[in-house]
Amino acid sequence: MAELLKGAPVAAALNEKMAADAAALKEKGVIPTLAILRVGERDDDLSYERGAMKRCGQVGVEVKNVVLPVDVDSDTFFKTLDELNNDDSVHGILMFRPLPKQLDGEKARKCLAPEKDVDGCTDGSLAGVFTNTVCGFPPCTAQAAMEILHYYGIDPKGKRVTIVGRSLVIGRPVAMMLMHENATITICHTRTKDVPAETRGAEIVVAASGAMESIGAEHLSEGQIVIDVGIGWNEEKQKLCGDVKFEEAEPIVSMITPVPGGVGNVTTSVLVSHVIEAAKRAAK
Amino acid sequence: MAELLKGAPVAAALNEKMAADAAALKEKGVIPTLAILRVGERDDDLSYERGAMKRCGQVGVEVKNVVLPVDVDSDTFFKTLDELNNDDSVHGILMFRPLPKQLDGEKARKCLAPEKDVDGCTDGSLAGVFTNTVCGFPPCTAQAAMEILHYYGIDPKGKRVTIVGRSLVIGRPVAMMLMHENATITICHTRTKDVPAETRGAEIVVAASGAMESIGAEHLSEGQIVIDVGIGWNEEKQKLCGDVKFEEAEPIVSMITPVPGGVGNVTTSVLVSHVIEAAKRAAK
Repeated sequence: MAELLKGAPVAAALNEKMAADAAALKEKGVIPTLAILRVGERDDDLSYERGAMKRCGQVGVEVKNVVLPVDVDSDTFFKTLDELNNDDSVHGILMFRPLPKQLDGEKARKCLAPEKDVDGCTDGSLAGVFTNTVCGFPPCTAQAAMEILHYYGIDPKGKRVTIVGRSLVIGRPVAMMLMHENATITICHTRTKDVPAETRGAEIVVAASGAMESIGAEHLSEGQIVIDVGIGWNEEKQKLCGDVKFEEAEPIVSMITPVPGGVGNVTTSVLVSHVIEAAKRAAK
Repeated sequence: MAELLKGAPVAAALNEKMAADAAALKEKGVIPTLAILRVGERDDDLSYERGAMKRCGQVGVEVKNVVLPVDVDSDTFFKTLDELNNDDSVHGILMFRPLPKQLDGEKARKCLAPEKDVDGCTDGSLAGVFTNTVCGFPPCTAQAAMEILHYYGIDPKGKRVTIVGRSLVIGRPVAMMLMHENATITICHTRTKDVPAETRGAEIVVAASGAMESIGAEHLSEGQIVIDVGIGWNEEKQKLCGDVKFEEAEPIVSMITPVPGGVGNVTTSVLVSHVIEAAKRAAK
């Protein structure tokens, strides 16, 4: 029986700290504020927005909702983004992507001020993750995986960690963050010849390929810690599943994040913690 | 007997291509130009400068030498850097570091225009290496290691590659560049528990820790390809040595870069190729 590394207590601990930090900022006259820039009404965006707003409300972070019509012209969009960049009362900007086709998403990513990039998508944020310097913010899901390790007292130092997946939102940044904490990292991907061999030899496995239930018993060995970053709807099983076959993994490994209820439960708290950190940096 | 992956033919092939590219640019009225910004007279800087100037001369790249006294004040230095950033006749800037203490080296790195950062030290260049997009240039030594692989027809795709060292000038960027070419990468460093085990299992080993002769027979296995990025003066042996014990490695592995005469022979050509590439990008 593996120990379940649940996300809820990690999020609760983050929220408690955030509420205290937000209160301290307010005493100094700073109201930490997140601008959510949304174009159109995509279901995914709306769902994430509701979660972020709820979490902001709980800890005392203001939300400024900026909603543009799905057919907004480029000039209006970039003027709006620029205003948010230059608005000192806004500390963080969550800009939903992908944007509609008439808007240049890559240009938008480059226009976003790194110091307000609480979602970790700008080159400044990614350079910060790569170089291990304070520049922007790491992608929220990557940091959520790290927060789970920290909360449960798992020190990556000297450990062999295999990351499955090399995306810019999770695989690559989490690999760098683990390396900065002195893990020996191996990054697997679609061109890796023998993924099971790479994961079996690791002490910690981070499943972040986005391929549902692609990691099974043949990938795992006794005593491992498994962080499952994936989440998707399994039509056959009619439930949410991660990248790991939980039923196969749970009897083998020593610790594992459940899906749902694991990494995903921490991501929004990390986003909001970035807003507070951005407000702190701006107040310096 | 291992095949020696010598740097000279790699550099020669790069130089031939560069000379043709520089000639084509001149026909369009563009003279590819490298500005070398040096403060003071450090031996290392002077030696690298001579090598870069010689290589530039060979392929038809102009050099603009900008030398400031070792006690230059901050205003003068940053005004000079700014002028080079804004000078359209300058395509690349090689700024020697470390700078003297009165100058903020980190600020200088941030001030350098990424599009002229032919040495790959700015956040823009490092973000480009991390995200695999065209932004600035990768660090020259990291790319030199890749050029050697390419020249000798070694495709990293699907291969297990262990990189020893995680510096920003070589270990981390070369790991990312190998991953972008679909290698499965493992990064070792000073906190890795069992470096020999990590390197023995690899098909390609990149020795880039800067610890002279730290990789020996116990790290290696038959059929491996070894890229030795280290170079330093061995007092005991009274000769230049790499990170690998060459005499131990050579009978075991299938291919190995010599030191001297390996990666180091390619680095300057890579720097100059970046000047030509910068001129091409600017001419677009």
